[in-house]
Amino acid sequence: MPDPRFFVAAEPFSATELAQRVGATVAGDGGRRIHSVAPLDAAGPDDLSFFDHPRYAAQLVATRAGVIALHPKHRARAPAGAVLLLSNEPHKAYARAAALLFPETQPQAGIAPQAVIAPTATLGKGCTVEAGATIAARAEIGAGCVIGASASIGPGVVLGPGCRVGANASIAHALIGAKVNVYPGARIGTDGFGFAPDPKGHVRVPQLGRVIIHDGVEIGANATIDRGSGPDTVIGAGCWIDNLVHIGHNAQLGRGCIVAGLTGIAGSTILGDFVAVGGQVGVAGHLRIGTGARIAGGSGVIRDIPAGMTVGGFPAVPIRVWHRQTALLARMARATPGEGTEEES
Amino acid sequence: MPDPRFFVAAEPFSATELAQRVGATVAGDGGRRIHSVAPLDAAGPDDLSFFDHPRYAAQLVATRAGVIALHPKHRARAPAGAVLLLSNEPHKAYARAAALLFPETQPQAGIAPQAVIAPTATLGKGCTVEAGATIAARAEIGAGCVIGASASIGPGVVLGPGCRVGANASIAHALIGAKVNVYPGARIGTDGFGFAPDPKGHVRVPQLGRVIIHDGVEIGANATIDRGSGPDTVIGAGCWIDNLVHIGHNAQLGRGCIVAGLTGIAGSTILGDFVAVGGQVGVAGHLRIGTGARIAGGSGVIRDIPAGMTVGGFPAVPIRVWHRQTALLARMARATPGEGTEEES
Amino acid sequence: MPDPRFFVAAEPFSATELAQRVGATVAGDGGRRIHSVAPLDAAGPDDLSFFDHPRYAAQLVATRAGVIALHPKHRARAPAGAVLLLSNEPHKAYARAAALLFPETQPQAGIAPQAVIAPTATLGKGCTVEAGATIAARAEIGAGCVIGASASIGPGVVLGPGCRVGANASIAHALIGAKVNVYPGARIGTDGFGFAPDPKGHVRVPQLGRVIIHDGVEIGANATIDRGSGPDTVIGAGCWIDNLVHIGHNAQLGRGCIVAGLTGIAGSTILGDFVAVGGQVGVAGHLRIGTGARIAGGSGVIRDIPAGMTVGGFPAVPIRVWHRQTALLARMARATPGEGTEEES
Repeated sequence: MPDPRFFVAAEPFSATELAQRVGATVAGDGGRRIHSVAPLDAAGPDDLSFFDHPRYAAQLVATRAGVIALHPKHRARAPAGAVLLLSNEPHKAYARAAALLFPETQPQAGIAPQAVIAPTATLGKGCTVEAGATIAARAEIGAGCVIGASASIGPGVVLGPGCRVGANASIAHALIGAKVNVYPGARIGTDGFGFAPDPKGHVRVPQLGRVIIHDGVEIGANATIDRGSGPDTVIGAGCWIDNLVHIGHNAQLGRGCIVAGLTGIAGSTILGDFVAVGGQVGVAGHLRIGTGARIAGGSGVIRDIPAGMTVGGFPAVPIRVWHRQTALLARMARATPGEGTEEES
Repeated sequence: MPDPRFFVAAEPFSATELAQRVGATVAGDGGRRIHSVAPLDAAGPDDLSFFDHPRYAAQLVATRAGVIALHPKHRARAPAGAVLLLSNEPHKAYARAAALLFPETQPQAGIAPQAVIAPTATLGKGCTVEAGATIAARAEIGAGCVIGASASIGPGVVLGPGCRVGANASIAHALIGAKVNVYPGARIGTDGFGFAPDPKGHVRVPQLGRVIIHDGVEIGANATIDRGSGPDTVIGAGCWIDNLVHIGHNAQLGRGCIVAGLTGIAGSTILGDFVAVGGQVGVAGHLRIGTGARIAGGSGVIRDIPAGMTVGGFPAVPIRVWHRQTALLARMARATPGEGTEEES
Repeated sequence: MPDPRFFVAAEPFSATELAQRVGATVAGDGGRRIHSVAPLDAAGPDDLSFFDHPRYAAQLVATRAGVIALHPKHRARAPAGAVLLLSNEPHKAYARAAALLFPETQPQAGIAPQAVIAPTATLGKGCTVEAGATIAARAEIGAGCVIGASASIGPGVVLGPGCRVGANASIAHALIGAKVNVYPGARIGTDGFGFAPDPKGHVRVPQLGRVIIHDGVEIGANATIDRGSGPDTVIGAGCWIDNLVHIGHNAQLGRGCIVAGLTGIAGSTILGDFVAVGGQVGVAGHLRIGTGARIAGGSGVIRDIPAGMTVGGFPAVPIRVWHRQTALLARMARATPGEGTEEES
């Protein structure tokens, strides 16, 4: 199913082989060969698919997929004849299997003649540097890094091994760990929004900190992470940051935080571990967001959030309070119709 | 009026010539020569202007514009002596006339010596590839395309004829139709935000789909469109997508949709044709937005929207309901003043 | 404290020297040498720190900083033995001192061999043009400008002296004053979102205006400023525009406006001088925002705002009215609990 223009399939796996590799259990013909992956409604007998959400229950019943990853509790809902990869985490089992069937394409290592690398920069073994990329003085690029076309690595920047920097991204004033994935157009280490307001001309506050990014972080396309003003801006290991997210100077994210698209986290705010932030959220500056807190998409956070709490709304409150508020307002508005207030259909 | 530094005027047209070319009717001296365009309050006797909004009624009365495009019903409000281009759609008549008076500058076709084009890439006739642009293996660029400075076209990408790719934009894993306009810094085909959360490290879900963009689409500066996770991300013909918009993996837009700046459309959401989305809107994932639906700027959409409905607010409700809710809340707040609640002036 | 990988310290200053240079008064040993800067909780005896917010009062009491910039009224709260730089504006005193201790690194002037400069472009003395940057025909670059790696300067663009254009930024159709700082990835002068809706294909309205940027403006990373449609888009002197901000065609900002991240200002809206706009604000088109107005983060502005007024909410109202509305709604929701409405803890 994946377009061979863009994705190269590995050799097929048997259901049993895949199950062993991804930690699942086979039910049915373990010798069934799997060549590819496809959604339930498009899969055929050579394809692996998965079921993980009641929204797609009707597709599960009707699917022609040869192999289906799903939770044991849904086993009876699968079509007769389908081979099953049973897992308590079927989406993960699918993800790991898909990564085996379609291993990420590695560009051929090498430095394009049109790359521009300062004499004092160092590169580890097996790096790829595409055309137009620039690597400035004293930068240290770990083994196996890929620096995309026209990307810019500033003076002194350190990248650990196995990082990927997308096309047209730029990185400055940053120390970056291993296997960090910087998507195209992301901006890391730019000046924070630091000034003292003054009617005769706002006074710039020199931004003398860095960006520290730990291992395994993903930074989305056109996202921006400003460097610290003195303290550092810190992104913990395993964070996933989506496209067009802005992270202000001195902000700190713990391990495994998830930040969806178009969200802004203002300066000096500190997130614990595994905080989940929806899309288009705004978090004001100088706040503390506790470990495991969750913020619904679109919310505006102007106060600290305790660990584990889920919040929503603007200003954000505990999510059930927000739901109660919006329900109450809707009920009152229905009860007090005025002029020109008929609902549209 | 347009600065000759940036815009080159064609030979002047007579009012009659222009009217014929844009489908309008002349009232007054059809021989009047039009050299340029200008807003009502700045136009002189050689300029074409237009009137399309009551906000500018006072400017219409006082304008010195030689020729004015306007609706026949406003004819009596134009100054005596002004030549009129009468049209039921005066803004379109103006737009078409302006495009004749100031035809878009075409760069001189040719491949800059500093462009980097893979041997297996193919280019149609009359393409322009600016310095620093990179075109990867097996890419197919249609006739008359313009690839801007330091733009990056990934392996296997297909561009139909007459596309423009702005400076520093990047495109990967995408099949793109004719006359698509990708503005500077836009990111197309990047990895979707796809992972299964896991405290030991979120598990990446391989993103094995594409981005399909149909003819005549505009994609704003620094906008991002992720490729599908398995299904494709699809942008229908004639969509206009503004700057800094994010479109998630597997989302589908029908024909002629309008999406204003800083809006995010989350993964797997499907828009019908001619949906109009205001600025800074958030649309949650896995929703259906019916054909012709309209979403007010700033809204947060968390439920399906039927065809033709206009919604607003957060969470978004039918627009008149939202207006009633905000009016009710304002009225109640006025009626129950508390401490420190005097309004600022 | 600033990492010498990225920041080069000047020779140390005595407290007296610094005080004279930044307009402060010394209390204590004016001969104390200052080598560096650090936050209160990390500073040592060679460091300058500052105190400007009650949030950090405990850190002030415990700090080991050798020199502290602070307001005279807080003098008694500083540890005994610390040298004080007394100023009514301690943050500004600190900022100016930090700029002396860590002067901005100037790249060595010169044109990289991999830069591409059109023969008809002109450059003032002492410019730096990094690898991969492109400067198109008839562009005029003032003395001492720095054009970053893979940045793109379009035909006819004018930059005043002392501008910095970050990596991968692009500028077109723009006249820019002195000492303007364009951060990496910013897009200036792109086509505005200009079309007349039409079911047979939206009709493009030629965008025939420019972007005018006055002296001393900062434009954040990946921000976008569209050129005018006929009138110009104008950014007044000394404005600070944060990352990922979008400014629509024909918008005008007065002097010294502050616009925080992810905010959108729609087309033809006019801001007076010193307007302060929080993050993730949406301002609708064709509005007037008076001088000195302030808009709280996350707000949606759909009506004009008088000079000096502070507003918040969506739709935005005077900030105290908004606070009263949200407090009222919260109170009512508490008073009318329903099913499943217990608050999370």
